[in-house]
Formats: sequence, C-alpha cells, structure tokens
Amino acid sequence: MSGWVVVAGLGPGSEGAVTPEVSAALEAATDIVGYIPYVARIAPRPGLTLHPTDNREELRRARHALELAAAGRRVVVVSSGDPGVFAMASALFEALEGWTAPPPDIRILPGITAMLAAAAAAGAPLGHDFCAINLSDNLKPFALIERRLRLAADADFAMAFYNPRSRSRPDGFARALAILRECCGNGRIIIFARAVSTPDQQVVTTTLERATPEMADMRTVVILGNSATRQVGPWVYTPRGME
Amino acid sequence: MSGWVVVAGLGPGSEGAVTPEVSAALEAATDIVGYIPYVARIAPRPGLTLHPTDNREELRRARHALELAAAGRRVVVVSSGDPGVFAMASALFEALEGWTAPPPDIRILPGITAMLAAAAAAGAPLGHDFCAINLSDNLKPFALIERRLRLAADADFAMAFYNPRSRSRPDGFARALAILRECCGNGRIIIFARAVSTPDQQVVTTTLERATPEMADMRTVVILGNSATRQVGPWVYTPRGME
Repeated sequence: MSGWVVVAGLGPGSEGAVTPEVSAALEAATDIVGYIPYVARIAPRPGLTLHPTDNREELRRARHALELAAAGRRVVVVSSGDPGVFAMASALFEALEGWTAPPPDIRILPGITAMLAAAAAAGAPLGHDFCAINLSDNLKPFALIERRLRLAADADFAMAFYNPRSRSRPDGFARALAILRECCGNGRIIIFARAVSTPDQQVVTTTLERATPEMADMRTVVILGNSATRQVGPWVYTPRGME
Repeated sequence: MSGWVVVAGLGPGSEGAVTPEVSAALEAATDIVGYIPYVARIAPRPGLTLHPTDNREELRRARHALELAAAGRRVVVVSSGDPGVFAMASALFEALEGWTAPPPDIRILPGITAMLAAAAAAGAPLGHDFCAINLSDNLKPFALIERRLRLAADADFAMAFYNPRSRSRPDGFARALAILRECCGNGRIIIFARAVSTPDQQVVTTTLERATPEMADMRTVVILGNSATRQVGPWVYTPRGME
C-alpha cells in the first residue's frame, strides 16, 4: 500500500467541530505530524506514531511528512483551525518545491478556521466583505502589515486578525491598534475571542477606544467590525447590505 | 420546553464536511428553515417540518424562524458553507432588531465555508493574508465592489469571490475581471472552483489573461492569488512569507 499525506484542520478546539472526513483520515493514519499542542489532541493508539514538533519548525515538519509518506506511511499533518489559513498547507507545498522524488498522494482537508468560530460565538461580525491578516511579523515586515491595515480600513472591510500578540513581539499589536484607531475612529467595534469552543472560551466585545494590547494573546483571534457593524442584545453583527 | 434557533452551516456539499455539532442540532430540531436547495439536503423524518423558501427571502425567513422558536419550536436555519459568511446569520440579527418580544435562545454553528473548501481542493491559495468579497450587487452598489477590488489589489491580498455571476447580473463579473487585469496584470493566477466537494466538483486553474466570465456561475467560488502565488505540480499555493 502506498503512502499518502493529508493536511487536516482540527477546527478551533472542540471535538464537535472536527469534520467526519478529518476524523476518518485520523483513523486511517499511521503517523501524526504537527505542532505539539495540536498533536496532543490526538488519542494515542497501537499502530499510530505521534510526531509532535516545536513552533517555527514548519518546513522541516513538512519535509518529514513527505519522507514518511514516500516510505509508505499514511501521514496526517494536523493544523488547528483550517490548514490553509496561516497553517501547514502552504508549508507542505513549499517543501514540495524542493522535493525531487515522485510526490506522494496529497490531500488537504479543510477545518473550521478560528475567525469563523469566533465570529459565530460573537454573532455575525463577518457577514459582509472582510479580510484576514496575520499580525505576526515573523514572515513579513511590519511595514507591510501597516500598509494592509490602512488599505483594509479604506476599503471598509471587517477584519480578522490572527496571531495578534506573542511574548517575542510585545509591541506590534499596540502599533496595529494605534493605526486602526487613526483609520477607523475610536467608536469602531472590536471583538477579542479567546480559546473559542473550548472550556476556556472568552469573548469580549468593546470599542477601539477601550481596546488594550493585553486583551489579546496567542490563543486570541481579534475581529474588527466595519463602519456598519452593530450590536443587538449580546450579539455583534455586520449587516449584509451597504449603501 | 422552550424553543430555540440555531443558524447552522452545512459546509460546501459533502456529508463528510458537516460538523458533528451541526448534525446534533439537526437531529434535535423540530423545524428546518432555509433556501430550497439547502433544505433539500436534510432527510425528512417524522416530527420534523421542512420550510424551504426561495432566494432573496432572507429577512422574512429569519423572522419566521424567530416566530417558530417563540412558539416553542426547535428551529435550525440552514446555510450552505458557513452561516456567517454571506449567509443567514446576519439576516437573523437584522430580523432580531425589529423583534419586540423576548428573544429566543440563539446559537450560530460554523461550517466549512466555500472559499476554504475551494482552497483545499486547489492547494493553499489563501495561505497568506486574504480577503473575501461578495460580487453580488443585490445589496451594495458596483462602485463599492470596484473600490474594494482596487484597494485589495493594492494591498496584495489573495482574494476569494462569492456569487461571482448570475443570470440577473451577467455583466458584473466581466467588469470585475477587467478591473483585476488592470490592477494585477495578465499573469496573475485565478482559480474557478465549482460545486466543491460534490460529485460535480470542477477546479480550473488559469491566469487572468485567459479567464472568461463564462467560467463562473452561482455554484462557483473564484480565488485570485496574490503576487507571490505559484504552482507546484497540480497544486496552487501562496507562500507563507513575503518581503
């Protein structure tokens, strides 16, 4: 039997949001490859080898998955959320660029990405045109982040921010908030959604004026409304239409 | 027992992409409300009333769901993909604005939205910052669509386009393609993903130069790469990093 690689999205955290096709791939796998906390979500069983690796090891991890599959193993690379959104799918194709042997069978299985789980928990803040921006400057300069924030504000997109803040980048999110205040005004609605769909879930809705960098950490997705985003009862939503 | 409304995403089409929490809500429901082809995905059973309604009936349908729940029914409003992305969740909150009685229990359950299923079928074209734009001008003027296309191109976002084309709007998508050619150049990679995850799935990768309006219909999601999007074998991906 020949090997394969599936890059699968585990969704935001709860088992109720893992799709049946992802569960089936996990059951068929001989090897699970991924970042430590995501591999920790997979129950060990006989015949299954877990390969947890550290953050920022994405390319090496992707090459390892290709090597295992080339050796006939059935490999699932696990991502949190959706594998195609700031996650392992792109890294796998980057690794494939340098791969000289015949490529193994590859399939990407989508998952519930963090911003959509967060949006659902808050209401429907992404109900109109929106963008998704990774605020980490590991892989791009902050100047490009700033440029995108200003253009996205100009386009009046709702915005979802991944990786808003980490210990190694304490200042970037404060700068991003200052830019957004300047472009969108103090009254704009902003949502901090932490650990969505897990027992630690916390969803805080406030305004740019009251938002502080400390409201976000690496388990938080941040959603900024567009100019029409509003509250009804405990819910936040963006109307479908715009003048 | 008191009524409730769940707005649930059925994903792009295959049963393998319906999350367990959505399946559980469907099993607990007494009433299913939604657009005809989405309600058609729900198997009839004793005790379950199906309420299929036509397109462009979103607000009336949302009010109907609230009324049923207020009468003690357990209502699932079904959307294709994710209910928070150009779908029924925003319509429900719009209806809630005009609701004077105490609101029923409301929950939004996310689903695999079309652009992420399409991206997974093609590779990882949304692997870097991106935006999602509804090309229908039912609820916003084309001038706003044009403005967003130009700003998104300026930001070098990958772009996902929902509702690119319908019989009632034959020209808008041709205009959008012309704007994108002007802003992004003829060589930019574009993906037409039709009926993703169903037996009719068809994924076509080409360039803006070769793209024609007829390549899209209302079952198609269109994804445009950013300036770095590339092909490796049959796959399209956008690298994680940018200078």
